[in-house]
Amino acid sequence: MSGRSVGVVTPQVMKFDAPLELTSGASIASYELAVETYGRLNAERSNAVLICHALNASHHVAGTYADDPGKVGWWDNMVGPGKPVDTERFFVVGVNNLGSCFGSTGPMSIDPARGTPYGARFPVVTVEDWVRVQARLADALGIEQWAAVMGGSLGGMQALSWAIQFPQRLRHCVAIASAPRLSAQNIAFNEVARTAIRSDPDFHGGDYYAHGVVPKRGLRVARMIGHITYLSGADMAEKFGRAMRTDDYQFHYDVEFEVESYLRYQGDKFSEYFDANTYLLITRALDYFDPSRTTSGNLVQALAPATAKFLLASFSTDWRFPPERSREIVEALIESGRDVAYAEIDAPHGHDAFLLEDPRYHKVVRAYFDNIATECVR
Amino acid sequence: MSGRSVGVVTPQVMKFDAPLELTSGASIASYELAVETYGRLNAERSNAVLICHALNASHHVAGTYADDPGKVGWWDNMVGPGKPVDTERFFVVGVNNLGSCFGSTGPMSIDPARGTPYGARFPVVTVEDWVRVQARLADALGIEQWAAVMGGSLGGMQALSWAIQFPQRLRHCVAIASAPRLSAQNIAFNEVARTAIRSDPDFHGGDYYAHGVVPKRGLRVARMIGHITYLSGADMAEKFGRAMRTDDYQFHYDVEFEVESYLRYQGDKFSEYFDANTYLLITRALDYFDPSRTTSGNLVQALAPATAKFLLASFSTDWRFPPERSREIVEALIESGRDVAYAEIDAPHGHDAFLLEDPRYHKVVRAYFDNIATECVR
Repeated sequence: MSGRSVGVVTPQVMKFDAPLELTSGASIASYELAVETYGRLNAERSNAVLICHALNASHHVAGTYADDPGKVGWWDNMVGPGKPVDTERFFVVGVNNLGSCFGSTGPMSIDPARGTPYGARFPVVTVEDWVRVQARLADALGIEQWAAVMGGSLGGMQALSWAIQFPQRLRHCVAIASAPRLSAQNIAFNEVARTAIRSDPDFHGGDYYAHGVVPKRGLRVARMIGHITYLSGADMAEKFGRAMRTDDYQFHYDVEFEVESYLRYQGDKFSEYFDANTYLLITRALDYFDPSRTTSGNLVQALAPATAKFLLASFSTDWRFPPERSREIVEALIESGRDVAYAEIDAPHGHDAFLLEDPRYHKVVRAYFDNIATECVR
Repeated sequence: MSGRSVGVVTPQVMKFDAPLELTSGASIASYELAVETYGRLNAERSNAVLICHALNASHHVAGTYADDPGKVGWWDNMVGPGKPVDTERFFVVGVNNLGSCFGSTGPMSIDPARGTPYGARFPVVTVEDWVRVQARLADALGIEQWAAVMGGSLGGMQALSWAIQFPQRLRHCVAIASAPRLSAQNIAFNEVARTAIRSDPDFHGGDYYAHGVVPKRGLRVARMIGHITYLSGADMAEKFGRAMRTDDYQFHYDVEFEVESYLRYQGDKFSEYFDANTYLLITRALDYFDPSRTTSGNLVQALAPATAKFLLASFSTDWRFPPERSREIVEALIESGRDVAYAEIDAPHGHDAFLLEDPRYHKVVRAYFDNIATECVR
C-alpha cells in the first residue's frame, strides 16, 4: 500500500439550527452532523474534497481513533498522505449523512419536540436532501466550491446530485461503482431486506427504542442479503466454494458450509451496531434516487445543469451496479458535452471492489487527483 | 399452445411399509407418496416417463382437479396429449418427494411413533434418497426401466442422480436448467432464506405445529429472495422497471414500486400454503447435492456409471443455474463417452424459463421425445 495513514483523527459534531425543508415536504427543525476532516484547507480554500458515504459507512473515512486504534476509516486505502486522495494536498471532509446512525441526527436521536427518540417519526430523506445538508456543511466550513465531490455506490449518487443541484460549487465529480438510478432488481433486494426488518416482531413499527429491543433478526437477514450482492459469484466461489466446516455432511441446518458461517458472522456483527430505521431510510433513499425523474427519464437533460468535470469508474464483476450502469451516465455526460473520464476496471471482487485496493483502480484515481491538485495551486 | 390438456386428473396416495435407510444414517419406518399418472403404460412397460419436481412443485404435473379447476399442473405446457411429452404415447408419472408438503410424508405428517407431527424430527433427506424412493415407486408401478427421467432445476439433479444410481433403470436422462452442484452463491441464497425462517419467532425450532402457528414472516422473506433469483434482471426491468403505484413518491415504506407489490404478493401467497420445514429440507437437499463429492470433485468419474442418453438444456438469462453449469455436465458426459444432446436457449425469463412455453425450447424437447417414442414401439 502506497502512502501513509492520516493517523489518529478526532470526529467533531456540528450543530445546524436553521430548519431544513426536505424533499418529502416534511422538515426538521435542527440537526447535528458528525464530521471528520483530514489535511489543511489552503488559503484560497480551493483544495477541499468531500467524500460521500454509502449504506453502512460514515464520516470516519480515514485514520484511526486514539481510544479505538482498530477502528480504521472505511476508505483509508484511498485517503491519506501520499494516497490517491492525498491529504498533503487536499483538505478532505467526511460527513455522516442525516438519518444515519454514527453520530449525525437520525431515527435514534432524541426528537426535541417530544424528548424521546424519533423512531418511526424520523422523516424519509433523499439523496438530494443529503446534498443540501452537505452544502450547508460546506457553508459552515467556509468552502464555496469543492475541488471534488467523490463517492462510491450510493456515495457516487450524491456526487452526481451535487453536480446537478449545485453546479457552481464543485469542479470535479467522482462517482465510483455507481448508477443513475436503481433497477427493479436493485429495488427488489432492498425491499426484501426491509421486509425482513419490518416483519421482525422486535421492530415495533420502528419504535423499538421505547421497548428496549433491537430487531436483530431482521437486520441480520438484511445484511446477509446485502453481502451476497456486494460480492461477485466468482469471488464467492474463490473465497468459499463448497468448503465445509467438517469433513462429512452433518445433516442439520447449522453451519455446514464456510459461506454460511461467513454470512452468519457478518449478519450478527452488523445487527450489533447498525440501526434498523437507518437501514430502511438509506435503502429508501437509494430507491428514490433518479435524477431523470423530472426530465421524463431523459438522463442527458437531467445532467444538463452540471458544469463539473467527471471521473467515473466501474468494476467488471460488480453485478449490483455493473459497468453498464456507469456507462449510461458516461454516455449521457458525453452527449451533454461534459468533460468525462471513465475507467472500467477488470476486478474480481464485485461491488465491494470500490472499497478495495486495486493498483489499476487506485492509479486512475491518483492520476485524476494529481491533475486536480495542479489546478488548485494554479 | 400446441397439444391439449390431460384434463381432470386424480392424485393417488401410495403407502410404502418397508423401512427406508436415508443417506444421513437415519431411517423412516413407512411413508406415503402422492402420485399422479397420465397416459397409459404400454404392454411392454417401455413408455414410462418420470417427472421430478423442484423446490415448490409437486406430483401435480399436468391437468386440473375436478374440485379445483384453477389448479393447473406446474408443467402442464410440457405434458399432455400432443404436447412435447405426449401423454398419448407416454405414461407419465409425477410424484411428490418425501419431505415435501403436498401429500407425501413430510415434517407436517404425523409421526406414528409419537402421534404428533414430525416437525423438527423429520430427517434430512438428499436427492439420492428421493431417487431411491422413486425407484421403489417404480417397483410398485411395475416399471423396470423408465423411457426417461426428466426434471428442471432440482428436478434435473434428480434425473442426473437416477442416471448415476440406477443406470439400468432409465434409457434417457433429461435435465433442464440444472447444475452439477450448487455454487457458494447458490448456497448463500438458501442460507439467507433458511435464516429468515429459522429466526422467525413462530418457527419454534421447527415444532410450530404444536403451537398452532406458522412462521409466515420467514417464509415470506424466503420466497421473496427466491423470486429475485428465479427472474433475470432484464426480465424484472421489462416487467416492472421503476413503475410506481402512484404518480408521485409517497415517502414511506409501504409499496411505492410495482416490483415491491409483486414480491409482497408472491411472499404472502407462498406463506399461506408452503410448509417451512419443507423449505429447509428441500434447500438443504439442494446444498448437499454433489455427485462428484465421492470422486474428489471429478465430475467425469462421478458420471462414469451412467449409461443413459442425455438431453440437457439451459437458458441464457438464467443466473441461478446459468448455461455454464449445464455445460459442465455436458462436457463431463462427453468426456465419459456418453450420448448427449444439449440446447442453450436464448430466453429472457431467467431460471423460470424452464417452466415457461418457449417455442425453441419446446421444439427441442418435443424432437427428443419423438425419438424416444420411436424406440418404445420398436
